[in-house]
Amino acid sequence: MRITILTIFPEMFEGFLNTSIIKKARLKNIVDIEVADFRQFTKDKHNRVDEYPFGGGQGMVLMCQPILDCLNSVKTGKSHVILMNPTGATFNQKKAHELLKQEDIIIICGHYEGYDARISDYVDEEISIGDYILTGGELGAMVVTDAITRLVEGVITAESTVDETFENGLLEYPQYTKPVEYDGKKVPDVLLSGHHENIRKYRLYESLKKTYLLRPDLLENRNFTVEEERMLDDIKLKMEENR
Amino acid sequence: MRITILTIFPEMFEGFLNTSIIKKARLKNIVDIEVADFRQFTKDKHNRVDEYPFGGGQGMVLMCQPILDCLNSVKTGKSHVILMNPTGATFNQKKAHELLKQEDIIIICGHYEGYDARISDYVDEEISIGDYILTGGELGAMVVTDAITRLVEGVITAESTVDETFENGLLEYPQYTKPVEYDGKKVPDVLLSGHHENIRKYRLYESLKKTYLLRPDLLENRNFTVEEERMLDDIKLKMEENR
Repeated sequence: MRITILTIFPEMFEGFLNTSIIKKARLKNIVDIEVADFRQFTKDKHNRVDEYPFGGGQGMVLMCQPILDCLNSVKTGKSHVILMNPTGATFNQKKAHELLKQEDIIIICGHYEGYDARISDYVDEEISIGDYILTGGELGAMVVTDAITRLVEGVITAESTVDETFENGLLEYPQYTKPVEYDGKKVPDVLLSGHHENIRKYRLYESLKKTYLLRPDLLENRNFTVEEERMLDDIKLKMEENR
Repeated sequence: MRITILTIFPEMFEGFLNTSIIKKARLKNIVDIEVADFRQFTKDKHNRVDEYPFGGGQGMVLMCQPILDCLNSVKTGKSHVILMNPTGATFNQKKAHELLKQEDIIIICGHYEGYDARISDYVDEEISIGDYILTGGELGAMVVTDAITRLVEGVITAESTVDETFENGLLEYPQYTKPVEYDGKKVPDVLLSGHHENIRKYRLYESLKKTYLLRPDLLENRNFTVEEERMLDDIKLKMEENR
């Protein structure tokens, strides 16, 4: 897997590329992450990459030429080109798994104001990491790169990703570790019982309860097992009783 | 505004803190962003901050002690404490505006696996930046910090934020800049006309159309002006005709 990030702030990626999992994946040559500075491609004599928008308005707009010339310099026949854009489709775990099938990904990051709309014609898709505005696409590019990289085989153990939030359509159950009592708060007895089946049931129940309370939207299009349906009925009943 | 980030990877923030708008906001002393390493607070003789989960399972769980002792060392009576957590409430532009009212924000970032659930009792809210899993909360903390910082008075001009995507409940209209023609693609005539009212109408129409096509969910609970309603009817009619 190769990921190339186009940005005018390559230095912003140093900490990200040289920390933790991303650093290890790069050192093991499992993932190759490159950063290209599209300002180096501008033909403007003052090195500008943006200009005032036609039709007036605040802020500057990134020009086609520097971004598209930089893109052409790194693009291959296998490249899948992503434009980070707040108006793009919202990134999620499903999209991370889809992108995992690509072997060559290019991510374009704008900064400050928007892109010349014609740039959209040269990309495969536009992605947003959420409904908020950031000073640039760099953090979005890091988010997408991180979410994909940790799923690449050999980066982290496969078992670590199975129980996680979103992977099975539910929020993860609460976890506890040492000590058994902290500041008067005790770990639930069942987790200390050593009874695997009870622990499994407790965790599934808590996972369903947490999702029902905090993110009911995640349950809307989900297929439930008979066990899950019974638990959910019980959760709803208890909520009613407690009102 | 002061933002303190608790992490075991302080070096990951260097590029973020020293680039672009965030750097300027810090140098102008408009926003004070500090990074605290909670590993320095562990009482474990091997400097560990995580342990195996009670009840079994993959991965490690962050212990209460290092995080909460670090939190106590930076917390004041005015602190608003945020835990970055994929199971938290989804961050959005409205939440960024809400957090803008706080003068002292603390953001806790986990890494790899989850937190001991008891940590939740010591925070004001848990936030997720989207429905995807990252190797840690660091990118999320940067996203939240960036989204808030750029809204703080004096960081960027107020006019720049008004027309943006999400601020008025719509995706931003397409922007164009020089040259008038690029690779055979021309800027829409209206933007070159100098006719301000027509430009305003064109932009509002395109904004509505883009939102209707790409993010219809954003239109669901929005209040429309009469002009917007008429435009939206026209957009829907044209879509029908083109089927």
